[in-house]
Amino acid sequence: MTARKLAILAGGGTLPARIAAAVRGQGRDVFVVAFDGHTDPATVAGLPHLWSRFGAAGTIIRRLHDEGVDEVVFAGPVKRPSFTELLPDWWTTRFLARVGTRALGDDGLLRAVVRELEEEGFRVVGLHELLKNLLTVAGPVGSLVPDAEAERDIARAAQVARALGALDVGQGAVVQQGLVLAVEAIEGTDAMLARCAGLARPGPGGVLVKVKKPNQDRRIDLPTMGVTTIEKAAAAGLRGVALEAGGSLLIDREAVADAADRLGLFVIGIELPVEGGA
Amino acid sequence: MTARKLAILAGGGTLPARIAAAVRGQGRDVFVVAFDGHTDPATVAGLPHLWSRFGAAGTIIRRLHDEGVDEVVFAGPVKRPSFTELLPDWWTTRFLARVGTRALGDDGLLRAVVRELEEEGFRVVGLHELLKNLLTVAGPVGSLVPDAEAERDIARAAQVARALGALDVGQGAVVQQGLVLAVEAIEGTDAMLARCAGLARPGPGGVLVKVKKPNQDRRIDLPTMGVTTIEKAAAAGLRGVALEAGGSLLIDREAVADAADRLGLFVIGIELPVEGGA
Repeated sequence: MTARKLAILAGGGTLPARIAAAVRGQGRDVFVVAFDGHTDPATVAGLPHLWSRFGAAGTIIRRLHDEGVDEVVFAGPVKRPSFTELLPDWWTTRFLARVGTRALGDDGLLRAVVRELEEEGFRVVGLHELLKNLLTVAGPVGSLVPDAEAERDIARAAQVARALGALDVGQGAVVQQGLVLAVEAIEGTDAMLARCAGLARPGPGGVLVKVKKPNQDRRIDLPTMGVTTIEKAAAAGLRGVALEAGGSLLIDREAVADAADRLGLFVIGIELPVEGGA
Repeated sequence: MTARKLAILAGGGTLPARIAAAVRGQGRDVFVVAFDGHTDPATVAGLPHLWSRFGAAGTIIRRLHDEGVDEVVFAGPVKRPSFTELLPDWWTTRFLARVGTRALGDDGLLRAVVRELEEEGFRVVGLHELLKNLLTVAGPVGSLVPDAEAERDIARAAQVARALGALDVGQGAVVQQGLVLAVEAIEGTDAMLARCAGLARPGPGGVLVKVKKPNQDRRIDLPTMGVTTIEKAAAAGLRGVALEAGGSLLIDREAVADAADRLGLFVIGIELPVEGGA
């Protein structure tokens, strides 16, 4: 079987470039779709690519067909596009007409895009299918582990984050000493962490928990954590980070472990109970 | 029957002074308990009062008994006290030993305080029992009303806020065009609104919805709205505010209506379905 050609729909950060390098290392061809204002220009250096805006989905899809792309992967965070960024071309217009505005809340849009890509004949794959070691596994990542109080905070934050996720709102929450300091909506994890420093109580610091939305397609927008988030968590006065095992991506596990040890935080993959809820 | 003497446990803002004036207007005696760093000093001007910190609950309770207080009301927002502010006296130590740390998340603490005050022989009353017109009623407050899209955003925000409330986290959410821009935890409504301006999408603005937590005791910490919040909502680019009818307090309804009309926002009391949930 010939190695299938992979298109990387590239959001921000370093993940798209990492994926491109890893997949090429497996002997596969890649084609990068970069989005104006979202993708780091360094991502496409030396790689066949197309710069586009979100609304030009027809142009993108035609190009993917022309390039002989078989598989598509979503990589890296995309700030939710504004409706003006979606300025529709013919394909997007048809898509919006079919999907309707009901799907345009939060992740509904992404799910609809995946369905349409599949109808166009592309196989949409998850990042964790391409790089097995990206998916968070259970257990500590660095050398520190949560104490009993941190364990309670983790359980509370996971409960809150999962309830929000069930409503398709967000994936993260920060809890300190039983108090919910912050819950994440569209602002993203970094912005949520930035406000936690001013909300923190004296005494043992809080914990950040990120979980997959209960009904989330693992091929899109899994919670993702790397060294930068660990550094921001430390700056916010947190003492640890917990990620859903099997439901989140850990970028560069060794670097995260080093950063966690250096900054004195625990980072841990946690198993969630099968059934969540209040 | 002699008018019962009322103690006002005074949080921030102008509500405690309004309550004091209204209750005295009804011919009742009041005694104000003001909290260092939380209560506006203007609140106690000309009124019998005690300045205290939260941890000195024993001193407060003894004083309430000495003053012949019959009823107690919680008035005005209190930033969640830090544990150092709670530096316990003998009464507080006993209280914490009895309640345990399990109750110290979010509103659990306040509920426990209410129970203890009742065991001390005080009747804890709600603000809405003292000032009937404080409680939000269904329908528009100013002259503007939400359009169909705003109604959908209100329904989505109410669903999210109520789910958070069911977890004893927060009471508010902001939704714009189906997207959840922000959810409120411990930072409070003003801080949540402050970050919405930077998160808003082009096009019709979002809506703020505040609801009571489903299991919330209406005598403590009902969502409260006045002119200041309407102004902050306008500054955040929102086009309206919805409050749970029967589950929130509207301070100075006429001034709120004037502010809403002046700033071009709708303000509306909404009935929630009996059963919430996703």
